[in-house]
Amino acid sequence: MRQAGRSLPEYRAIREKHSLLEICRQPEIAAEVTLQPVRRLGVDAAILFSDIVVPLQAMGVELDIVPGVGPVIEHPIRTVQDVDALLPLEPESGVPFVLETIAILVRELEVPLIGFGGAPFTLASYLIEGGPSRTHARTKAMMLGEPATWNKLMDRLSEAVLVYLRAQVAAGTKALQLFDSWVGALAPAEYLTYVAPAVERIFAGLEDLGVPRIHFGVGTGELLGLMSSVGADVMGIDWRVPLSVARERVARGVTLQGNLDPAVCLAPWHVVEEHALEVLRQGGGRGHVFNLGHGVLPDTDPDVLARLVELVHGYAP
Amino acid sequence: MRQAGRSLPEYRAIREKHSLLEICRQPEIAAEVTLQPVRRLGVDAAILFSDIVVPLQAMGVELDIVPGVGPVIEHPIRTVQDVDALLPLEPESGVPFVLETIAILVRELEVPLIGFGGAPFTLASYLIEGGPSRTHARTKAMMLGEPATWNKLMDRLSEAVLVYLRAQVAAGTKALQLFDSWVGALAPAEYLTYVAPAVERIFAGLEDLGVPRIHFGVGTGELLGLMSSVGADVMGIDWRVPLSVARERVARGVTLQGNLDPAVCLAPWHVVEEHALEVLRQGGGRGHVFNLGHGVLPDTDPDVLARLVELVHGYAP
Repeated sequence: MRQAGRSLPEYRAIREKHSLLEICRQPEIAAEVTLQPVRRLGVDAAILFSDIVVPLQAMGVELDIVPGVGPVIEHPIRTVQDVDALLPLEPESGVPFVLETIAILVRELEVPLIGFGGAPFTLASYLIEGGPSRTHARTKAMMLGEPATWNKLMDRLSEAVLVYLRAQVAAGTKALQLFDSWVGALAPAEYLTYVAPAVERIFAGLEDLGVPRIHFGVGTGELLGLMSSVGADVMGIDWRVPLSVARERVARGVTLQGNLDPAVCLAPWHVVEEHALEVLRQGGGRGHVFNLGHGVLPDTDPDVLARLVELVHGYAP
Repeated sequence: MRQAGRSLPEYRAIREKHSLLEICRQPEIAAEVTLQPVRRLGVDAAILFSDIVVPLQAMGVELDIVPGVGPVIEHPIRTVQDVDALLPLEPESGVPFVLETIAILVRELEVPLIGFGGAPFTLASYLIEGGPSRTHARTKAMMLGEPATWNKLMDRLSEAVLVYLRAQVAAGTKALQLFDSWVGALAPAEYLTYVAPAVERIFAGLEDLGVPRIHFGVGTGELLGLMSSVGADVMGIDWRVPLSVARERVARGVTLQGNLDPAVCLAPWHVVEEHALEVLRQGGGRGHVFNLGHGVLPDTDPDVLARLVELVHGYAP
């Protein structure tokens, strides 16, 4: 359950004293907030506390994460010169705190640790728009209007993300998630031409490590066939697509992950139970990892999440 | 091409002097900004300049449209008492300026005028959240947790929307669009239970008028089958769903409308042309109304839009 920490008072207490990026850069604190939901909820794996923009800082991008807004990039990327100015990522010198956080967690956790990174399209959208965008208009304009610049940016980002994810596994993570959070803004034809090759390079470059590779983006119903065919082992499914439909679209042999609507967890327990059981039923007990269909909403009652974990653990198909 | 006006300097000149709601309430100005894109672009129909929240004001809801944010509701609806406090809509006294705008346009236009309204889910989301929302969390919490309150709200809104749309046709509009802009946030099962009945009542209540009923929402790929089965004659298709896929999902006999990605219009002309021709090819020349897959982006060059209209008019399948 990604972002489960947001619903915990013990996390909010830490956030009162530290910004999100400060937490990411301080291994002891980042490890602590990674552990909090595991202790409370009894989930089967931990997910590293970090943010997909963290490696961009180590590539020379000045940025901040503004509460209520999201990542804000000081100098958005608009030209091929801007792309050329991106530094290659060297994890040991650029993001040592991430690797130290993983090392602490591997010692302290009794469940596997999942690492993650942002996929090239989503990172590019932040870099080009300068922050979150509803329309991704400038991003698409560069992609369609200046494909050479776009492809160079995709190359740079896919190289960096691959190096970053490999370093996470070397430090001890047992699985990886690649978040292409905003790629659902594209039609399938554009995804195939302008995005899929970069993602494929990342997944192919991780294959020898033998860790499960999970892929996810919201609103990607029309892209599930393509996104599950570029090398992922597990495909995260948005709550909008019933698992029975997802099963038809996702490539054979790829496990489904998801997809309870996080908003359902704000409803009374009998509603949560009914919806969770329907997800489990459609998941079919095999080739399915139960999860929410997106991150936990901040207003969620942690006791509901703990009860949900219990329900899933007790489920027999 | 909805919101085509936003790209025109002559519209922006008016917006410097008047807020969006001011324009909606002043028939001469609302008619002028409705006419602007028709004059410039040579489109086959005009779409009334207004906003889906306009009738809510006439139901006693205090609201404003804040630039860069969207509609902001002074006292969000949270309880059954809040729902009871909504007044029935009486178009002649509540929104006379809309009917006057239509009357002016019917005199001045040489192409048909399309009227529109917001669908109950989308209006409810604004009313409950108090403004635009990424998650629609409170809306879903009421829908799932307090279905009696929710259903009462859906009843009130569907009655008001029906009365509003009928008044538009009586004043002279020749077609109607019902925008369920945010309903793509729901999974199909929730749409069917909590939303479809209200939409069905609206479309059924319009049937005797004999005007084409167009339905649309962004990110509704998984809902197309259901949304096109509640009485619409035309189903607007988001650019995310290729028309060839949409054709399989949409109910038989329902015409498709769309679906060029508005962001494509920011690219060089040869890219616009290539994408537009692909839309026309997939549309197949029959049972298809060419349009963008969402509103025009403000940065769009009006000359590109005019050239696009020319291209579509000259297309022979």
